Amino acid sequence: MRAGQPVTIRDVAQRAGVSSATVSLVLNNVADSRVSAATAERVRAAASELAYAPNLVARGLRRRRTNTIAVLSDEIATTPFASRMIGAIQDVAMRNGLLVFMVNTAGDPETERSAVVAFNQQQVDGFVYACLYHRVVDLPPGLGSNVVVLDGRTRRPRFPAVVPDDRGGARAAVTELLAHGHRRIGFVNDYSATVAADLRLKGYRDALREHGVRFDKRAVRNAEPGLEPSAEAAVRLHEDAGVTALFCFNDRVAIGAYHGLRRHGLAVPRDVSVVGFDDQEFVADYADPPLTTVALPHYAMGQWAAEELIERINGGTDQPRVCEMPCELVRRGSVGPPRADGT
Amino acid sequence: MRAGQPVTIRDVAQRAGVSSATVSLVLNNVADSRVSAATAERVRAAASELAYAPNLVARGLRRRRTNTIAVLSDEIATTPFASRMIGAIQDVAMRNGLLVFMVNTAGDPETERSAVVAFNQQQVDGFVYACLYHRVVDLPPGLGSNVVVLDGRTRRPRFPAVVPDDRGGARAAVTELLAHGHRRIGFVNDYSATVAADLRLKGYRDALREHGVRFDKRAVRNAEPGLEPSAEAAVRLHEDAGVTALFCFNDRVAIGAYHGLRRHGLAVPRDVSVVGFDDQEFVADYADPPLTTVALPHYAMGQWAAEELIERINGGTDQPRVCEMPCELVRRGSVGPPRADGT
Repeated sequence: MRAGQPVTIRDVAQRAGVSSATVSLVLNNVADSRVSAATAERVRAAASELAYAPNLVARGLRRRRTNTIAVLSDEIATTPFASRMIGAIQDVAMRNGLLVFMVNTAGDPETERSAVVAFNQQQVDGFVYACLYHRVVDLPPGLGSNVVVLDGRTRRPRFPAVVPDDRGGARAAVTELLAHGHRRIGFVNDYSATVAADLRLKGYRDALREHGVRFDKRAVRNAEPGLEPSAEAAVRLHEDAGVTALFCFNDRVAIGAYHGLRRHGLAVPRDVSVVGFDDQEFVADYADPPLTTVALPHYAMGQWAAEELIERINGGTDQPRVCEMPCELVRRGSVGPPRADGT
Repeated sequence: MRAGQPVTIRDVAQRAGVSSATVSLVLNNVADSRVSAATAERVRAAASELAYAPNLVARGLRRRRTNTIAVLSDEIATTPFASRMIGAIQDVAMRNGLLVFMVNTAGDPETERSAVVAFNQQQVDGFVYACLYHRVVDLPPGLGSNVVVLDGRTRRPRFPAVVPDDRGGARAAVTELLAHGHRRIGFVNDYSATVAADLRLKGYRDALREHGVRFDKRAVRNAEPGLEPSAEAAVRLHEDAGVTALFCFNDRVAIGAYHGLRRHGLAVPRDVSVVGFDDQEFVADYADPPLTTVALPHYAMGQWAAEELIERINGGTDQPRVCEMPCELVRRGSVGPPRADGT
């Protein structure tokens, strides 16, 4: 906390020893089973001690505030994955009396430039630059200094950015399989060399190393998009490499694995355990059996981006910090012990 | 075509005897297997004869044009279903040199009013009012006359509106089951009395009537949201009402039916045929077996809304026509003949 600066949600979070997200949940009276009564009490006390006034701060004591923010996205607003990120930005904005304008540029530089010009004419208070998936981005010129990058990061750390901790999430997924006794664990990774594919492979290797299991490259296969390549990779890993469990790049790959295994008379998790990634609604939860997976923290990332942007607008931070949002394991019904006969 | 009015995409469509969507595909050189070479030739000839100049028209020969349109949505931009509608609006807008601003109001009247005020200050050329699902809406004041309603309609026909032909889609789904020889066809409908639930029930009855099959209310059950209620309804309809086929309100309900039937040792389509509705990506196509369903024409509806709005902005139409967009059957692997033993 800097003298003369407005108190921010992060100051409250620091004093109470919790995350900004928790402060937000408590002060906005959002029912959430993860926040205990004692924690809520501690947050309220900290807010009171610091005389934290979120709405006054956000509604703009500085001049030329329009109380509008802009979300520039590549493809995001037109994909199912956008929903929770955009929803979170809008929730935070609404609580702070801000209106959110979104433009999807479809990655077209001319559209991006037009949008930035239009938003600057309109004097928006700041920008969220949102990406479809975790990647390295080049930002368009003219954004000013009130910018936060969502689900991506810039080459040089000029602006705050929030990305999922893909490596930690993968480690959690594979650790869950190891904890059930599996030692031959396959990984069906994404075919394209994305940031996420690279980090999830690192997380897979981290978990094996921590449990003294030697990495075997025959247990890793890359699958092109679609059910069939995933089904084929899963069956090959079981039949040729003898794996008893599969970590899949994402939930769609895991569903492909289900199909392939079922066609070969193999049941999940009796014969092969499966863990996905994303926690995609109507995919992971609607699988039969319901899929154990790792949640991509879209809502938390959107919330962090919006709160960080509001803080920047209010002059409360100028550090280009990068937040790696934890990806938590969601246990459902696709993991069990290896079969006693070891097949 | 009116004298002195700009030539519109609909004029070209009428002359060529095709839909506006087809004209759009052809003139924008979008590869689409549904458009034959002969049709494409006819469209180009009509456009040439009428001296149709889409970009000149859209880029604004009238004064005070800002070449921006606004999409006001209730929940839509934060749901997976929004993707194709929003994507279509953006595709049409981009082809016409327009920038699209979106605001999700979460159905909050105050946010809606703020958004309308902000957009009017910005002098947007027109509004698309987009709904999460087919419903009757009350529009906020201040929208002006350049308004199109997407996936909803107003109580009185003041503005153009586009909705899915839910009734026709349901009729197509049930006709598919009848065509395979089924006569005992169950319907797992939605629990809430939505416009879609009402229309899909009408379509179910239409198809039965056309095939001389008597409506039996015991073959219809309403299920609350979630897998379990759908699973339960499907099993009850098979065991108690003796149905050999199921029409489901949507694809998620159909997946629930799959789960329930599988737990009872019943295979789809060997023992029970199933048809869904929506053609939800990663749900219908990722089901095992892949689900025969009816496509909700989200892309076509978004495209229609954007094109109609551009026409209104250009003064090319002032009729509050309502378009019922056809919902087409998508055949996959969940429909077969009834079992020979009639169970």
